Amino acid sequence: MASETEVIGWAARDTSGHMAPITFSRRALGPRDVKISIKFCGVCHTDWTVISGEVVPPNFPVVPGHEIVGVVEEVGSEVTKFKIGDHAAVSTYVNSCGSCRVCERKLPQHCKDVVWVFNSVNPADGLPTYGGYSNLMVADESFCYVLPKNLPLDGAAPLLCAGATVWSPMKRYGMGKSGNRFGVVGLGGLGHIALKFAKALGMHATVISTSPAKEKMAREELGADNFIVSKDPKQMEEAAGTLDFIIDTVSGIHPLDPLMNLLAPQGQFIFVGIGLGKLEIDSLPMCFGGTSIGSSSIATQAELQDMLDFCGEKNLVCTIEKIPIDYINEAFKRMLKGDVHFRFVIDVGNTLKPQN
Amino acid sequence: MASETEVIGWAARDTSGHMAPITFSRRALGPRDVKISIKFCGVCHTDWTVISGEVVPPNFPVVPGHEIVGVVEEVGSEVTKFKIGDHAAVSTYVNSCGSCRVCERKLPQHCKDVVWVFNSVNPADGLPTYGGYSNLMVADESFCYVLPKNLPLDGAAPLLCAGATVWSPMKRYGMGKSGNRFGVVGLGGLGHIALKFAKALGMHATVISTSPAKEKMAREELGADNFIVSKDPKQMEEAAGTLDFIIDTVSGIHPLDPLMNLLAPQGQFIFVGIGLGKLEIDSLPMCFGGTSIGSSSIATQAELQDMLDFCGEKNLVCTIEKIPIDYINEAFKRMLKGDVHFRFVIDVGNTLKPQN
Repeated sequence: MASETEVIGWAARDTSGHMAPITFSRRALGPRDVKISIKFCGVCHTDWTVISGEVVPPNFPVVPGHEIVGVVEEVGSEVTKFKIGDHAAVSTYVNSCGSCRVCERKLPQHCKDVVWVFNSVNPADGLPTYGGYSNLMVADESFCYVLPKNLPLDGAAPLLCAGATVWSPMKRYGMGKSGNRFGVVGLGGLGHIALKFAKALGMHATVISTSPAKEKMAREELGADNFIVSKDPKQMEEAAGTLDFIIDTVSGIHPLDPLMNLLAPQGQFIFVGIGLGKLEIDSLPMCFGGTSIGSSSIATQAELQDMLDFCGEKNLVCTIEKIPIDYINEAFKRMLKGDVHFRFVIDVGNTLKPQN
Repeated sequence: MASETEVIGWAARDTSGHMAPITFSRRALGPRDVKISIKFCGVCHTDWTVISGEVVPPNFPVVPGHEIVGVVEEVGSEVTKFKIGDHAAVSTYVNSCGSCRVCERKLPQHCKDVVWVFNSVNPADGLPTYGGYSNLMVADESFCYVLPKNLPLDGAAPLLCAGATVWSPMKRYGMGKSGNRFGVVGLGGLGHIALKFAKALGMHATVISTSPAKEKMAREELGADNFIVSKDPKQMEEAAGTLDFIIDTVSGIHPLDPLMNLLAPQGQFIFVGIGLGKLEIDSLPMCFGGTSIGSSSIATQAELQDMLDFCGEKNLVCTIEKIPIDYINEAFKRMLKGDVHFRFVIDVGNTLKPQN
């Protein structure tokens, strides 16, 4: 019988969030498992949210990381999707109960027994889950995604959370029909890839941002068709009623009525950044406009694979800053200040070594 | 050339809302116009909202009524959908600009120049619009709907607003797939027809009501599969996470979090009764559940016709209390107390006479 795999990684030991090296074990390869040599892992705000204990209680040590890409190193006897040498990816969850109504609806991310890729315990092996700030992953193939070989691994990594988080509502709400007018609020990790998707799907795309300084980059680097400074009431009023869809990627509670006012009739507003708090929204404009506001949480397995296939066809990846693993504490500090262009990605393959 | 048509009706003259007889003119029949001898007109809360000046400024005299059914009496030379003797219906709007992006999207009810069936001015003839508390209607055939002849005219009348208002979001959000679990909040004019539609579409249907006394009627008369008393925290907790769609028909601002808590993952909550005010909603459950909240306003022309066709197939109409026109002042009083089972419908054909 195969033995457990020794893994090296970086972990937080307490809610200070300070990261330092660790070694731990992953389960022995099962018949449906894929062993992935991790090459890159994106750094997401949620990594920090978990280790700092802001929303859910952390079970230290916590090895974060849920934007995982690498190369298949070994496959179980029943694996059909992968062979050794393939590029593979893992996202935010690695198991679910598989039998509840939510799982039957193929929405495992909403299963009450979903197993997150870190800070959970996986009933499949009884072990705590550890994420992608590590050199090896073992996961059931149904929670591993085929990464098209034409995509660079580093830029592809943040697709697995940032990309999926905006892709899922785009598909669920039917965005991308000819003539659709799309807006994205905030131009960070999620916002910049939402903008790339919107353009690749053929939509007219507007960026709504507090920072006039980002206009040139939004238009020239990312292809935005329009740019609205949200602090400028005149610009906001001129754009009233023009957008069919808005994805709001900004963290924390912020005024929504001025943004909702940009929606065209029957427009849909989806927030993916707001965490704790009370939304406050004027009801009458929603009644008259038939608009809606919703949220979204990561993506289904089918949506994840569809997104990667689409990115493969379009040669589309995230714009990133590649960092060595020992830069992670500094990267967290910069990320919390919004100082990143647009996502940090850890070069696990080249910088995570036993001597760390 | 045809001359203007003299019409008799009942109007409010001031925001007291007191209704009394009136005579007025409608335009001479144009080539695309249909002249309808009105037989029945539903009494909707919006009729009262307009004449009492609660939301929009009334232009007195106001002849309300936007749930209009009758028999075609005359057709213009270019009319194709109707012939004399057909049953026809008119809903809340009778014109729109026809050229803006919203009209191109076939959403005339959201056109900024929409012409409501009463309390507007119609650029087509320059006349004020007067509603269905009257004996004759003249309207462009594209704003008249074919009423299947198997449907009783009285029960069909409230389909034109109450029915359409809940039908539109049901279709827009894709309700009615096999296994869908539907909930309706409130069991009045809108709620009772939403429940009938839900059952006719094959959904599992739950009524959420403050009144335990309505359970027997909801189950036995209207076919509800489940009934939840919203004031009972235990019942509300037991039903948490079970509903794919909720249509909330209750008027005015009320706590939404306990209702949103009934939604299954990716569930959609649509409110059609709330008017003025601020919605307050906990954001975190929406993030985790990927749920949404939206509103809706009447229906498109295509949705109106589809609804009537569906009702014809299913032999489905509203449950009503038929009243003579001279009962209207009393009917408003009772409606405002919620004392109606489930919609008042004015028997225009038999009770609106010149001697009134």
